Amino acid sequence: MSDLPKFVEFHEEGPREGFQSERQLYSLAQRAAVVDALSLTGLSQIQVASFVNPKLVPAMADADQLYGAIERREGVRYTALWLNERGFERAAATPGVDLDGKLMFYTTDKFSQANNNCSAADLAERQRGWAKLYDGHGIATELAYIMTAFGCYFEGEVKLETVLHYVAFIRDMCADQGRPLPKIYLADTVGWANPEELKRRIGAVREMLPEARIGLHLHDTRGLGAANFYAALEMGVDLFDSSVAGLGGCPFTSHADMAAAGNICTEDMVFMCHELGIETGIDLEALIEAARLAEQIIGRPLMGKCMHSGSLAGARAA
Amino acid sequence: MSDLPKFVEFHEEGPREGFQSERQLYSLAQRAAVVDALSLTGLSQIQVASFVNPKLVPAMADADQLYGAIERREGVRYTALWLNERGFERAAATPGVDLDGKLMFYTTDKFSQANNNCSAADLAERQRGWAKLYDGHGIATELAYIMTAFGCYFEGEVKLETVLHYVAFIRDMCADQGRPLPKIYLADTVGWANPEELKRRIGAVREMLPEARIGLHLHDTRGLGAANFYAALEMGVDLFDSSVAGLGGCPFTSHADMAAAGNICTEDMVFMCHELGIETGIDLEALIEAARLAEQIIGRPLMGKCMHSGSLAGARAA
Repeated sequence: MSDLPKFVEFHEEGPREGFQSERQLYSLAQRAAVVDALSLTGLSQIQVASFVNPKLVPAMADADQLYGAIERREGVRYTALWLNERGFERAAATPGVDLDGKLMFYTTDKFSQANNNCSAADLAERQRGWAKLYDGHGIATELAYIMTAFGCYFEGEVKLETVLHYVAFIRDMCADQGRPLPKIYLADTVGWANPEELKRRIGAVREMLPEARIGLHLHDTRGLGAANFYAALEMGVDLFDSSVAGLGGCPFTSHADMAAAGNICTEDMVFMCHELGIETGIDLEALIEAARLAEQIIGRPLMGKCMHSGSLAGARAA
Repeated sequence: MSDLPKFVEFHEEGPREGFQSERQLYSLAQRAAVVDALSLTGLSQIQVASFVNPKLVPAMADADQLYGAIERREGVRYTALWLNERGFERAAATPGVDLDGKLMFYTTDKFSQANNNCSAADLAERQRGWAKLYDGHGIATELAYIMTAFGCYFEGEVKLETVLHYVAFIRDMCADQGRPLPKIYLADTVGWANPEELKRRIGAVREMLPEARIGLHLHDTRGLGAANFYAALEMGVDLFDSSVAGLGGCPFTSHADMAAAGNICTEDMVFMCHELGIETGIDLEALIEAARLAEQIIGRPLMGKCMHSGSLAGARAA
């Protein structure tokens, strides 16, 4: 009926997205416990923390210690986020961080300014330097994120042409520097995507760069997360960022927090994959347990559904 | 890209599904306020209450009074639910109830027994009498629900053949009684559907009865609600039950409550339609206001997303 992938790869971002968005601070032990529960589920990659300005994001001030507090398991990459070279250098100096060389592009100046303090074009130019910095550390430039790839809270609609401009930039930059194409992630940073536009944009990126692997970073800001995820599966996309329990933003706060509204929920999307006969390498029941632990630690009801209703395993066995 | 409908019709079930699922009782004035807010949004049909055993569902004991407490608006049908002839007679005797003749089928004996105290086959046979009862009241038999059309919490997987058996039953019964085919609703009563199976079943029902209008009653029990909704749109389905704010079940309760987990959220699905260029006749901003009022009255955070994040109207205008 459609071109569903056979295997979907999930990159878990709950620990970073989640604890970063909470107003309360949580202990190293609490945060490590969530990471450790996740590392038992078959997830191959967990984004543990971000190396960003501790004055702006106090929850991440002790990011370096967190990597020391977790119980490392083989086969799991413990990654990190950074927004500039300094953040990367801190991550690189932290034992236990699995560095993945990533490039970052914004489609609008205002969002780029807010997050990176420069225009979108300037940030793009800087990526040439980021890639060389990664070279210097001996790590591959494996990912390129195009943030606000569907819309921007500050500037509104984002044209497909703008997205394609940055896709072409990535292609040309990699050609210039003689490096292979990275995976290209379209990020719906503020929950603007809808299933049809998502398909259109994936199709257009694929037409421009048929050899690129496309990933998606989706937020469930307006309740379309699962529909967008399914639409992407229909396009054969097999690479997603997601957050356990739907962590990544408290929807019960003010309008100003909307940009932080939760990612698509890992265990619910894994459940969808398994129901569709798509493999993930993930133990759904273990992941649901990790979600419940996260809820217990966070201390308020989280947005995930399977964690509250249970999967269908019990009903099927009965 | 797909066969999306141009217009989607929503039947709002939040007042009935929502207040019925809550443990706390709410005053007539509170419940009427939610209905009244909904009636200002352009919704053409609102299910206000159910006429069921007041001992089992105390929240609906004063259903008859609720219809007197609402401020009726032209162009809105104020419907009701009943599970047997007695419930229908009570609804029919209540001023202000807009009666819609509906038939009810279960695919499994255990669920039918739990809800209707008879086997699924017996319940089906009784529908001949229900239709005649509606005839006696001068109302058309306009809907037929096939409950647990994807799976059953008690009996597990439900075969497509079983669903088609009841579709054929409806067809034959209507032929026998010389009445037009009702709209046929497939109800995912316990949140078992996935997008591909949904498409398969819609396709199979349509193949058997190309002239029937198909509706869906979906629950978001395991986070697939929006994906199922979108998959149905792709199949051209244009008729959905839904609940404002995702009312219809508290996901933060025990496993035993899972059958009651919330319906797909009206305003989030209306938002999806509008983003896809599909008309609904509904004022999304007014609907979001109604959802916020419902949350305020219910007194705990509800599951809807747009009600917390806002639609994109503000961001587009900015």
